[in-house]
Amino acid sequence: MWGMIATWRMALEGVEKGVHLLREQNSCGDALEAAIKEVEDFPYYKSVGYGGLPNEEMEVELDAAYMDGSTMDFGAVAAIRDFANPISVARALSKEKVNNMLVGEGAAKYAAVNGFERKNMLTERAKHYYKKRRKELSEAERPYDGHDTVGVVSLDTHQQMCAGTSTSGLFMKRRGRVGDSPICGSGCYVDSEIGGAAATGLGEDLMKGCISYEIVRKMKEGMTPQQACEAAVNKLDERLRKQRGAAGDLSVVAMNANGEWGCATNIETFSVVVCSEKQPLSVYRVSRDSDGNCKRELADQAWIDEYVAQRSKPLE
Amino acid sequence: MWGMIATWRMALEGVEKGVHLLREQNSCGDALEAAIKEVEDFPYYKSVGYGGLPNEEMEVELDAAYMDGSTMDFGAVAAIRDFANPISVARALSKEKVNNMLVGEGAAKYAAVNGFERKNMLTERAKHYYKKRRKELSEAERPYDGHDTVGVVSLDTHQQMCAGTSTSGLFMKRRGRVGDSPICGSGCYVDSEIGGAAATGLGEDLMKGCISYEIVRKMKEGMTPQQACEAAVNKLDERLRKQRGAAGDLSVVAMNANGEWGCATNIETFSVVVCSEKQPLSVYRVSRDSDGNCKRELADQAWIDEYVAQRSKPLE
Repeated sequence: MWGMIATWRMALEGVEKGVHLLREQNSCGDALEAAIKEVEDFPYYKSVGYGGLPNEEMEVELDAAYMDGSTMDFGAVAAIRDFANPISVARALSKEKVNNMLVGEGAAKYAAVNGFERKNMLTERAKHYYKKRRKELSEAERPYDGHDTVGVVSLDTHQQMCAGTSTSGLFMKRRGRVGDSPICGSGCYVDSEIGGAAATGLGEDLMKGCISYEIVRKMKEGMTPQQACEAAVNKLDERLRKQRGAAGDLSVVAMNANGEWGCATNIETFSVVVCSEKQPLSVYRVSRDSDGNCKRELADQAWIDEYVAQRSKPLE
Repeated sequence: MWGMIATWRMALEGVEKGVHLLREQNSCGDALEAAIKEVEDFPYYKSVGYGGLPNEEMEVELDAAYMDGSTMDFGAVAAIRDFANPISVARALSKEKVNNMLVGEGAAKYAAVNGFERKNMLTERAKHYYKKRRKELSEAERPYDGHDTVGVVSLDTHQQMCAGTSTSGLFMKRRGRVGDSPICGSGCYVDSEIGGAAATGLGEDLMKGCISYEIVRKMKEGMTPQQACEAAVNKLDERLRKQRGAAGDLSVVAMNANGEWGCATNIETFSVVVCSEKQPLSVYRVSRDSDGNCKRELADQAWIDEYVAQRSKPLE
């Protein structure tokens, strides 16, 4: 069995690449890295890699994580600037003996010394959004809460699994802000014998529930990926509402070692991309009904195309 | 009921201060902050705050986290340089709406803007250790694996709980390296209705098990703090050995909402400080027997004094 699941329709072209590698019996890690790099390199996605929206000082600071489900190797970068592919740096870090999570200048130094591609990650388009937003922003307002992390779980024909994430985080975040994406057990988690999970949403809330770890734990207890995703999202959502009065966006994907998959969200507009030996490459639109159950429907080609058209339309 | 538990004998004087505040019905947060500041300010502890050992570039980079068990507020700093009390910055960050975890320059900027005390955290003593080590260090060697994080769980007479950590991390770590201490669910976790936990050891391994989250979860399922600590350490230790061939140091403390407490470790030399309405202020030496059971014995005054004497003896 092989399979791959990812957060958001933006991962479609990446998953297509990754799945091609999985079909050819390449490793889950190579497939996942190829999938996430595709999203990082695409300039029109405003929340991942090149073209990602900047922090409040107009710097693009990126977070990424990589976890190997067989060795438990985990690597991550946070608040790294001006490298093309944070996921590749995170994956390299996962193979170090210690010092597996590096932030800020230290992460950049490691990436430079190890020959990763330098790139000015701030696009003209992102600058335009920044300036427009700067004008609009009143003191009282929260930062824009777009935070569409790409999170991927990958299963290869050798029955190995891995998981990874990449994001530019909250638009207009403070310099140095870190969300859930590069955090082990929050942004992603995976165990090759059980399965893996990845998250997207408000990092500050996702990390309060170690949500990816929790989903894998529930799958280990016997839940299907779908049951585990829904239970984890609904439980954390409920706790946040009870203890804080409100819950941020929480969306997750999971796949188990048999290639079965699941997803859940507490918002209206989540989408996932999935493909496996048994499941043709598909995009699903995901939301939650009033009973807390996950609704998903296959997205048609018009919706898939419109998603990109919206994001790449000429600036006013 | 009130109570406080902390990792390592070094927390003794801090816990004494914290407990004094708890007895006077102050908040768990004020008590915890006072306790950890005491450890941060003491120049002879080489792994926390002032006098903490530097990274490979001779910079003291500090990590700290604070979690409120009632509101789920979580704040953290990582790789922050030259502020006297990282725990206070982490606690302030926990009260922000978003941007609760800040790293590197961004963390320093936040601390400066918000009036936290600047301090050159590199002592002559730490420089001496650095230079000595630099001389000794062969390329093949791992960095020194001393990483004695102070981790505290605090319960006040208003039945509120919080948890926090502070550390300078691995000696000779890479610039920007982040361990478990500032990671929600790994370094610490707390729920006022259940209890809290904190961890110390090899951060890279502790975070692979979201160990503090896992201990609180086990207490929620009905385990005592002692059962939860032992189960979490032994399970993670076993998984690490099985999947990686070796496990780093894993040591934990926990206290539940009734003031009952527990601790566990996979090493020979762990120690904890604990005090509650029912438990006089005590230091225990903790280790693990060959059956995986936690052994603890009350430390006598001679051992307690020797601990400090060792750490503050004149440099050769």
